[in-house]
Amino acid sequence: MHAVADICVIPLTGSVSVRAEVARAHQLLAESGLKVHLHAYGTNVEGPLPDVLAALQTVHETLHAEGCPRLSTTVKLGTRTDKASSIDGKVQAVRDILDGD
Amino acid sequence: MHAVADICVIPLTGSVSVRAEVARAHQLLAESGLKVHLHAYGTNVEGPLPDVLAALQTVHETLHAEGCPRLSTTVKLGTRTDKASSIDGKVQAVRDILDGD
Amino acid sequence: MHAVADICVIPLTGSVSVRAEVARAHQLLAESGLKVHLHAYGTNVEGPLPDVLAALQTVHETLHAEGCPRLSTTVKLGTRTDKASSIDGKVQAVRDILDGD
Amino acid sequence: MHAVADICVIPLTGSVSVRAEVARAHQLLAESGLKVHLHAYGTNVEGPLPDVLAALQTVHETLHAEGCPRLSTTVKLGTRTDKASSIDGKVQAVRDILDGD
Repeated sequence: MHAVADICVIPLTGSVSVRAEVARAHQLLAESGLKVHLHAYGTNVEGPLPDVLAALQTVHETLHAEGCPRLSTTVKLGTRTDKASSIDGKVQAVRDILDGD
Repeated sequence: MHAVADICVIPLTGSVSVRAEVARAHQLLAESGLKVHLHAYGTNVEGPLPDVLAALQTVHETLHAEGCPRLSTTVKLGTRTDKASSIDGKVQAVRDILDGD
Repeated sequence: MHAVADICVIPLTGSVSVRAEVARAHQLLAESGLKVHLHAYGTNVEGPLPDVLAALQTVHETLHAEGCPRLSTTVKLGTRTDKASSIDGKVQAVRDILDGD
Repeated sequence: MHAVADICVIPLTGSVSVRAEVARAHQLLAESGLKVHLHAYGTNVEGPLPDVLAALQTVHETLHAEGCPRLSTTVKLGTRTDKASSIDGKVQAVRDILDGD
């Protein structure tokens, strides 16, 4: 089963700035073999559902192992069986409609 | 690693009413062995992180197998290494502060 | 327009423990006149859509005014025109289905 | 108060395909005067907090007025008082860290 997801990791580190941990989370997702797209409030990921969930677990385990004491992550997880879905396809579908106006 | 999460499944079924699928998702989470608490916009779940993610995968796979063509789920996933965390403990911590006012 | 929403405020304060700010956010929502229900990963709120959004703004403004430098809040916002919706009704609808099994 | 947010509108229309409504929501956000960036699981928006919330209300009111019976929207809402924040700045901060590896 293929999934398109969006993952936004919020580290609670004892610091107001969390960009190092956010960058590390994105890097781990990119290195997981999933297709990724960085935006201002998270990372779009695309791949087999088990791989998406495994990558999410790796992000939590790795950030904790590297010293982050607490994480609160928001995930949006989309799957469908009626047609294929992709990061690029979802963006293009919206653009096609708006360009057609 | 222990996790407290919140899972809100939105089925896109071709019907405006989705309560059957939402109830089924909650039932699957409850049957997974995780501690669960139902609220008006999702289900709190608590247990080992791999079990939480496995239950999430089971919900998607089962609802699709039972005929739902599309799912968009929002998950909040909390883990911490500095202290224990639980559904009951998180609610009680807030109540204790507010009762102490 | 009536709304049922779920609001989860994550303060980034320079401390790993954020329970004081989370409790304060819940208190502000309760004092706003909206119907509220506290759970382990946020607060369900119910009321007119403009009041829900005004309460959300008040939470951000008040927590900042009281010294919190950064907030990242996750909101789920539900509205519908085909029938009435409420915190109690949404929970009861799921329970009715599961009890009927 | 300035906000960077992410808005993902899920219409429950009685159809599995919701791209027309998702495109309309993005269009309404873009026309609101906020800075926007479309991605595969929502729209990043940036602007004054009251304007972000007003645009969110406009999306719900307009889609309902145009015939959509039900909406469930997920919003991530970030505000901070310690420094400026922007869509471009948040993406660049992550890229700078990763490029520096």
